[in-house]
Amino acid sequence: MSEVIWGINPVLEALKSRPEKIEEIIISKSHLRGKVYQIVEQAKKLGLPLKIQAKFHPAKIPREAQTQGVVAYLSEYRYADLAELKSRWEKAQEAALVVAADGITDPQNLGALIRSAEAAGAHGLIVPKRRSAGITGVVAKASAGALIHLPVARVPNLVRALSWLKDQGLWIVGLAGEAQTTIYELDLTLPVALVIGSEGKGLRELVRKNCDYLASIPMKGRVDSLNAAVAGAVALFEVVRQRYFKLKEPTK
Amino acid sequence: MSEVIWGINPVLEALKSRPEKIEEIIISKSHLRGKVYQIVEQAKKLGLPLKIQAKFHPAKIPREAQTQGVVAYLSEYRYADLAELKSRWEKAQEAALVVAADGITDPQNLGALIRSAEAAGAHGLIVPKRRSAGITGVVAKASAGALIHLPVARVPNLVRALSWLKDQGLWIVGLAGEAQTTIYELDLTLPVALVIGSEGKGLRELVRKNCDYLASIPMKGRVDSLNAAVAGAVALFEVVRQRYFKLKEPTK
Repeated sequence: MSEVIWGINPVLEALKSRPEKIEEIIISKSHLRGKVYQIVEQAKKLGLPLKIQAKFHPAKIPREAQTQGVVAYLSEYRYADLAELKSRWEKAQEAALVVAADGITDPQNLGALIRSAEAAGAHGLIVPKRRSAGITGVVAKASAGALIHLPVARVPNLVRALSWLKDQGLWIVGLAGEAQTTIYELDLTLPVALVIGSEGKGLRELVRKNCDYLASIPMKGRVDSLNAAVAGAVALFEVVRQRYFKLKEPTK
Repeated sequence: MSEVIWGINPVLEALKSRPEKIEEIIISKSHLRGKVYQIVEQAKKLGLPLKIQAKFHPAKIPREAQTQGVVAYLSEYRYADLAELKSRWEKAQEAALVVAADGITDPQNLGALIRSAEAAGAHGLIVPKRRSAGITGVVAKASAGALIHLPVARVPNLVRALSWLKDQGLWIVGLAGEAQTTIYELDLTLPVALVIGSEGKGLRELVRKNCDYLASIPMKGRVDSLNAAVAGAVALFEVVRQRYFKLKEPTK
């Protein structure tokens, strides 16, 4: 699921022409000088995963390759566009169910979320281009095959994508631990996009402001948060429950 | 969280006197002969995690140690007994909520399940001694601190532990993908033990037979199962929903 390129100029060129395809850049510590610094700066500016290694043994490189201490892994995964997600819920004649992952950087977590989203019958998943894991082999494996069935869109601007979803009639529901309203009190039979924040930081401020509702999963123990993929799954299956096990709205 | 021992006789002795403490045995491939085979056989018989390594560089071993190609890692974690779990729900004056993990061997998954169980207000978790991950540093880390708050009991016989829980008035609910009844149709406000099967194989036959109910999480996509820890979390928070957001029983 990935292409690999190496050498200073090819990697600089990829950073310029197709940064959205770059999954990871690995740099040899001993080569940190001159144009290699440009690569580091550019990668940091774009929020791309970057490793600087004292022991530089990058995978999948031909033995004779002149890497100049710089290697980049590019995704060959074909991301969906938002219109493809829309065509899914239209064809299925179902209330839309979309997941937006705001900054899940751990590929295991992203894969687990894709698996749960597909199992809950979601129509697609959206990740931002920056500060998020992209679709790699690790993500595909962690999704346990679900990635084949669930379209994933990668957008330059998540807030704009949420705004587009609103225009399509979806309610934007952000999961936020501190929200007074719980997921059990929202009508999730309506078309919804569930926005899941990153493990450590939750939703970004601008994303949070663009949600129609913030909702929490009530914590009954001493730990005050769930793993991001687990929180996503709990919310997704609350949607399943409300939609398929017709219930009146719960009250506290 | 772990003690390490080495040498053929110390490891054989530990296998005899305190096998429940053994988290993992590592054996050097080049030392496979004579009594080392006894260790391999005994470890396999007990279903203990065993690695035979061509490159034998076990962690946490003093440089001067004469390992004889055999190292065992022992847990120092103090497991709870079942009575401690009971005192939790009695003190809290709550309907019991216990999780039994039937053969979750991946420590990340077990840690994630402990985190979700604690967050859902469970009173404890039960793992069998055999064919299950024990409590290691990896489990503790994956639990994100929840392990400190949630007692974990490790029992020689899970079926007997379930039977004991029945005697304490709990209903035993096994998660099983093929079950006709869904978790949404059970009254989970009653005292319950949720039994979660292993990722690949689900519940063992004998455990399944000893459940009062088998219940499924309805799958709405193309993949037909959830990650074991995720499935546990979805069921746990259905308990939370039913208990704290008083609802009538759902009907299909």
